Amino acid sequence: MKLYDFKMAPNPQRVNMFLIEKGIEVPTVEINTRERAQFQESYLAINRISQVPTLELDDGTCIAESMAICRYFEGMQPDPPLFGNNVKEKALVEMWSRRAEFMGYLPAADMLRNSSPVFKDRGLPGVPGGVPQIEKLIERGRNSMDRFFAHFDERLGEVRFVAGDHFSVADITTFVTTRFASRVEVNPPASCANIARWLSEIESRPSAAAV
Amino acid sequence: MKLYDFKMAPNPQRVNMFLIEKGIEVPTVEINTRERAQFQESYLAINRISQVPTLELDDGTCIAESMAICRYFEGMQPDPPLFGNNVKEKALVEMWSRRAEFMGYLPAADMLRNSSPVFKDRGLPGVPGGVPQIEKLIERGRNSMDRFFAHFDERLGEVRFVAGDHFSVADITTFVTTRFASRVEVNPPASCANIARWLSEIESRPSAAAV
Repeated sequence: MKLYDFKMAPNPQRVNMFLIEKGIEVPTVEINTRERAQFQESYLAINRISQVPTLELDDGTCIAESMAICRYFEGMQPDPPLFGNNVKEKALVEMWSRRAEFMGYLPAADMLRNSSPVFKDRGLPGVPGGVPQIEKLIERGRNSMDRFFAHFDERLGEVRFVAGDHFSVADITTFVTTRFASRVEVNPPASCANIARWLSEIESRPSAAAV
Repeated sequence: MKLYDFKMAPNPQRVNMFLIEKGIEVPTVEINTRERAQFQESYLAINRISQVPTLELDDGTCIAESMAICRYFEGMQPDPPLFGNNVKEKALVEMWSRRAEFMGYLPAADMLRNSSPVFKDRGLPGVPGGVPQIEKLIERGRNSMDRFFAHFDERLGEVRFVAGDHFSVADITTFVTTRFASRVEVNPPASCANIARWLSEIESRPSAAAV
């Protein structure tokens, strides 16, 4: 088994944080997307759409998409459960992990990819010929992040962890998102005391070192 | 139990198709988002970010996000399994359902929301004050759809269903996406014979009537 990884990038970080929480070690191969290693023919055979991470199983099956990789490990080693303990919890973990992605992760990615010179012509990931930046997505992303922080601060005023009583992948996605957003200098407003309380709890976990 | 639904909208259609495949009937409440019903105070209490669908359980728990709702029903009634039969299949279903969403569903939504007069000031869903349309997302969306069709045609040349040997939610997401894209007159190119073969198989299922 091999994990094609890039430790600087936020999606691989979600998988790395998950693995530390599970206590699982997997051999990794670094695919430096800054140096366009994801577009090499050898990696195309692993991941046809040139994105990291990808998990290659011993039978040759390649599993892409961070959450699919995490689900594979959840199935192979159910403890500790990070996708919920029962049917209702599992649904809530999925709900909140998706809200973190759609309200937080995607707008943060929009902001970074459409503003940074590093991502010039890389408005979307995995496109060999490039995708032009769209300046208007920066402002739209910032407004979405405002809504994300307000909504998650409200949520974390009601529950200890994002999906409820237990630490889950929803916390991983939310934590990676806040760190990712800080790269474009977008941080939770000072008024978000519940996010601050939750952040300091997550930062104290050994798995936070992966992010 | 109640499903807050809007049968014209693609995300609710994913849940409706899933329920027909499972043979589950759930009482529904129609939330007409064309008439801004999702912004009413009574619905805000059900779904804080004004999106459809939402499943309200008898204990008052509200589960939003289509895939979270589908997972809830999968857990309550495992047969027929629509999220995969074993650990590896479950990971592949997640992978391919996500690729359908990110490569197909989101660009189709970008095209519709940023071009149609019906969605003027509704560039993103669930924002009461509105979000301006961004014209450049139309062209970017069309290019993404080209990549989506090419990639999925290649995939469907290797397997019968999107995630492998069995019908799954990955087929539901992909099917709803192709129907959704047709609203902005984006259809699989004539060269995509594998998508055509797969589409005619999916269209013959009774659940296709939900879309």
